[in-house]
Amino acid sequence: MRRIQRVKKSLPLSRVYRLVEPGPVVMVTTAWHGRANVMTLSWHMMMDFEPPIIGCVISDRNYSFGLLRATGECVINIPTVELAAKTVRVGNTTGRKIDKFKAFRLTPMPASRVAAPLIAECYANLECKVIDARLVERYNVFIMQVLKAWIDPSKKNPRTVHHRGRGVFMVAGRTITLPSRMK
Amino acid sequence: MRRIQRVKKSLPLSRVYRLVEPGPVVMVTTAWHGRANVMTLSWHMMMDFEPPIIGCVISDRNYSFGLLRATGECVINIPTVELAAKTVRVGNTTGRKIDKFKAFRLTPMPASRVAAPLIAECYANLECKVIDARLVERYNVFIMQVLKAWIDPSKKNPRTVHHRGRGVFMVAGRTITLPSRMK
Repeated sequence: MRRIQRVKKSLPLSRVYRLVEPGPVVMVTTAWHGRANVMTLSWHMMMDFEPPIIGCVISDRNYSFGLLRATGECVINIPTVELAAKTVRVGNTTGRKIDKFKAFRLTPMPASRVAAPLIAECYANLECKVIDARLVERYNVFIMQVLKAWIDPSKKNPRTVHHRGRGVFMVAGRTITLPSRMK
Repeated sequence: MRRIQRVKKSLPLSRVYRLVEPGPVVMVTTAWHGRANVMTLSWHMMMDFEPPIIGCVISDRNYSFGLLRATGECVINIPTVELAAKTVRVGNTTGRKIDKFKAFRLTPMPASRVAAPLIAECYANLECKVIDARLVERYNVFIMQVLKAWIDPSKKNPRTVHHRGRGVFMVAGRTITLPSRMK
């Protein structure tokens, strides 16, 4: 497996919100007993800037739900539109029966702080640990802290993919700048 | 004030996730003792399909935080790019000192289920009540149920706005369709 530093740059944790806040579809990787899995989701939100805290809803019908609950670790991988078809196929299948990395030719890379692998093809990767499981029972919400963030420095205007439901996705369009006092 | 039904169509609650999941910047309206306020945010996520449950982070430094905690009600209003400049100005100011509806020429309309007003200029409006305040103390997270949803039926491909931080916003681009088994 390739070393992260050759293909990705470390991203300051204070900038993680800029990746998550626009609402991209993401792929979440987990690992348990040497076996990795990946699922697709877009029910997530930023909850704090630094350290970055992210809330994610992962249905208890997903194979990844049990893996995340058992290990308390995952990687949030953010794909761009070139990976959209694979991202959807990952979402259509379950890791109970197949190795999705092999089935969809995704390249796992060792993370620096968690056992779950990064997906090399994704333009950004956030290594996370679960810090609050209070809402898991009632809402399937995992509250996670980002321990380490990686980004592909060559993607200046990443064409992330955003789910509109029933097979329809919006692709990130043009960028505008406005005099905002928000972070 | 105009009646909602003349300008908006009722949206089935089962479709609300399609509006929130792509991650748009929204404006949240609150009202207390006959006075309405509006703030801008994009830290939100879907938490359930039907009834639709949405989690929102509202900093306790915002004037709206106290209004929402006191009343347990708000409206999530989703603007398109035509409203982007106003949306940012709403985010740059505080309702402690000014009436933002007047200052930014936003049109309040009475909601059907909550006291907070809808913003007529927004293409979609979600009337919400707080159902779980367990995470308010620790994370400023309000968990809300959507009671009623309204949409402008003329906006088929809404150009929502997505926050990338530091004054940079991504505008919703082209739509693609992929064979997804997700809802």
